[in-house]
Amino acid sequence: MDISVYMAGVGQQARVAAAAVARSSTAVRNGALLAMADALDAARDALKQANLKDLDNARANGLESAMLDRLELTPTRIDAMIEGLRQVASLPDPIGEITDMSYRPSGIQVGKMRVPLGVIGIIYESRPNVTVEAASLCLKSGNATILRGGSESLNSNQAIAQCIAEGLTKAGLPEDTVQVIKTSDREAVGKLITMPDYVDVIVPRGGKGLIERISRDAKVPVIKHLDGVCHVYIDSHADPEKALNIAVNAKTQRYGTCNTMETLLVDSEIAADILPLLANAFEHKGVELRGCELTRDILPSVAKATEDDWYAEYLGPILAVRVVEGLDEAIAHINTYSSQHTDAIVTENYTRARRFLTEVDSSSVMVNASTRFADGFEYGLGAEIGISTDKLHARGPVGLEGLTSQKYVVFGDGHIRT
Amino acid sequence: MDISVYMAGVGQQARVAAAAVARSSTAVRNGALLAMADALDAARDALKQANLKDLDNARANGLESAMLDRLELTPTRIDAMIEGLRQVASLPDPIGEITDMSYRPSGIQVGKMRVPLGVIGIIYESRPNVTVEAASLCLKSGNATILRGGSESLNSNQAIAQCIAEGLTKAGLPEDTVQVIKTSDREAVGKLITMPDYVDVIVPRGGKGLIERISRDAKVPVIKHLDGVCHVYIDSHADPEKALNIAVNAKTQRYGTCNTMETLLVDSEIAADILPLLANAFEHKGVELRGCELTRDILPSVAKATEDDWYAEYLGPILAVRVVEGLDEAIAHINTYSSQHTDAIVTENYTRARRFLTEVDSSSVMVNASTRFADGFEYGLGAEIGISTDKLHARGPVGLEGLTSQKYVVFGDGHIRT
Repeated sequence: MDISVYMAGVGQQARVAAAAVARSSTAVRNGALLAMADALDAARDALKQANLKDLDNARANGLESAMLDRLELTPTRIDAMIEGLRQVASLPDPIGEITDMSYRPSGIQVGKMRVPLGVIGIIYESRPNVTVEAASLCLKSGNATILRGGSESLNSNQAIAQCIAEGLTKAGLPEDTVQVIKTSDREAVGKLITMPDYVDVIVPRGGKGLIERISRDAKVPVIKHLDGVCHVYIDSHADPEKALNIAVNAKTQRYGTCNTMETLLVDSEIAADILPLLANAFEHKGVELRGCELTRDILPSVAKATEDDWYAEYLGPILAVRVVEGLDEAIAHINTYSSQHTDAIVTENYTRARRFLTEVDSSSVMVNASTRFADGFEYGLGAEIGISTDKLHARGPVGLEGLTSQKYVVFGDGHIRT
Repeated sequence: MDISVYMAGVGQQARVAAAAVARSSTAVRNGALLAMADALDAARDALKQANLKDLDNARANGLESAMLDRLELTPTRIDAMIEGLRQVASLPDPIGEITDMSYRPSGIQVGKMRVPLGVIGIIYESRPNVTVEAASLCLKSGNATILRGGSESLNSNQAIAQCIAEGLTKAGLPEDTVQVIKTSDREAVGKLITMPDYVDVIVPRGGKGLIERISRDAKVPVIKHLDGVCHVYIDSHADPEKALNIAVNAKTQRYGTCNTMETLLVDSEIAADILPLLANAFEHKGVELRGCELTRDILPSVAKATEDDWYAEYLGPILAVRVVEGLDEAIAHINTYSSQHTDAIVTENYTRARRFLTEVDSSSVMVNASTRFADGFEYGLGAEIGISTDKLHARGPVGLEGLTSQKYVVFGDGHIRT
């Protein structure tokens, strides 16, 4: 297969389908989502068969067990995909919303209408359920999608793609509204991210390496999520109980997520009081601490943190701890080492909370809440295609709105400019 | 001078200044804008001298007279720069605005806070007044700016830069908040658009060639404006008087602007009635028509339009005219040939107006109004840094809001995730 020709064809078909889906009604798009759910439900055996093929290949290729686990389509996971489709169908339609409509002195009326972006390319790794999740969010927001999953889940993804196509056809939408790339050739990714005529935005989902590679090579805008080096700063005016609860929750509720705290900052004024309590709580949870000199003065058994620890996204039961001289040093540390993902202050002091909110330049800034809340569902977006650590277009958790744009609409009555 | 070292220094300084200006109050930023206005007013002689040097060099280099005209800083143009600064100072401050604040079932309160983008790079051609205009909009929106003007206006820009620096210093802001690049070496542009660590977004202002080059080579997001191939479609249910007024205004009110109509589409049902009236009006204004076969059946003296004419941005007194079989063909023509800038329908028919608004995929879509209204000031943005033909981040006229981003703010009372 000539990958270049194949991908250009995929792109052209997506462009044509995008025009049709952009015009489609809310009811038609929701109908397609519900029909996809039904098709998945009816195809459980076929899905299982295709998934077994992938699992056999993966075992033969010596994939590690964590990878195999992610690849597996259990009945519970199929249930979750079906339930996800029904939930997306029940969300409000973002498309066509008109806002900010007002009369101008010239007499024209100007407002903004929310519209689809067009064609969205999604590049992801081993989990086949992402196929359904990404396709459903893009369809709900009136876009065509080109999906490129991991090579190890090719058969599972094609089986899912068939259910998606069935749902689209049943609803009267073009099958090409959602295309799952049929080859595991890496050249297909290279082509997908360099077709600005056919693709409006790329959303990569996967490890930092994948995302960095795609961002570097893309000729199409990328909504990207790099790392999550998140901080909690315990101010001297913090309520100790809230501080303890938040710090423990932010670190230990889940270790592997991007909104998990990786560095804890403590004001020197209360360090001697609160650090022993924190150390005790973290020891109880099996979290290893790595501290600055001042931390180690209070907690001598803690290992010494190096400069690398301040930059580290451990994604595991390790926590860097630093004692700082007040708010200025805390903000300076965060704005130096944070990945601008999510940072929180614990304080009862109004002025310090206000300054932290203004001066910390991260996609989510919190007062007296756990960083673990940085999530599209917790924020009420109804869904999440990813979390953006970029500043342009979308910042923080990206829901349906991040897959849309706004155009200006102007109403006149024969108005001309003078 | 080692350009690479110089530009990295400019970038680092901008990053430091950006943190300071992001923290600064509305009053301080407005104070700086007013102090810049005063400094320009006091420096009229120095500005004139510097500008004369540029004009002499330009004449010696054989620059054409249109270019010389754009380069000249007349007293009226200096007045306009001063007045522009005062107007920007009087606009509402976009920074810090908090919207969409609501309680979530978990008990946290989530909202969005408008924040500066950080460092904005502006690349422009010969007009020195862009230096003041761009710097003022970026400062108002809390950003640091790196400006790179045309080499032919280097002395004028440096003289303006001195006034800007004076205003910043007087208001207590870092001088590096606005930096005007001190070299006309082209390598400086290449460096500016490939420093993602120091520059958050590039706004190029100039011809299509410049913008295409920058978009191709940039490693930083670009807010770009390519061409304006704008359409007016006269539907069979149009009010003929409104149609005539709008078509003439959209084409002839100014020829050289991006929101000028370049192709007129006329429904075949009314073509025989309205085309002769239009031809007469355009002849009166000295506009050359180029028509499709059906147009020429009605207006035999009109030249034949080629495929190239449908793509053409004439920026002059030429108009392509096509007779179409109803709304579907009009929309199909526009979505094929339009640059997705601004397109208008003239009709009294509710359903056709509604379909045109939904199905035309352009940054501004209008009913019964001249395309010439597509402009930041006419839309009430208060200012305009450019018009974006992109879909991501900013679409259509870009005002202060396009130079900002939104971060999430979360308020809790010791809330943790369960």
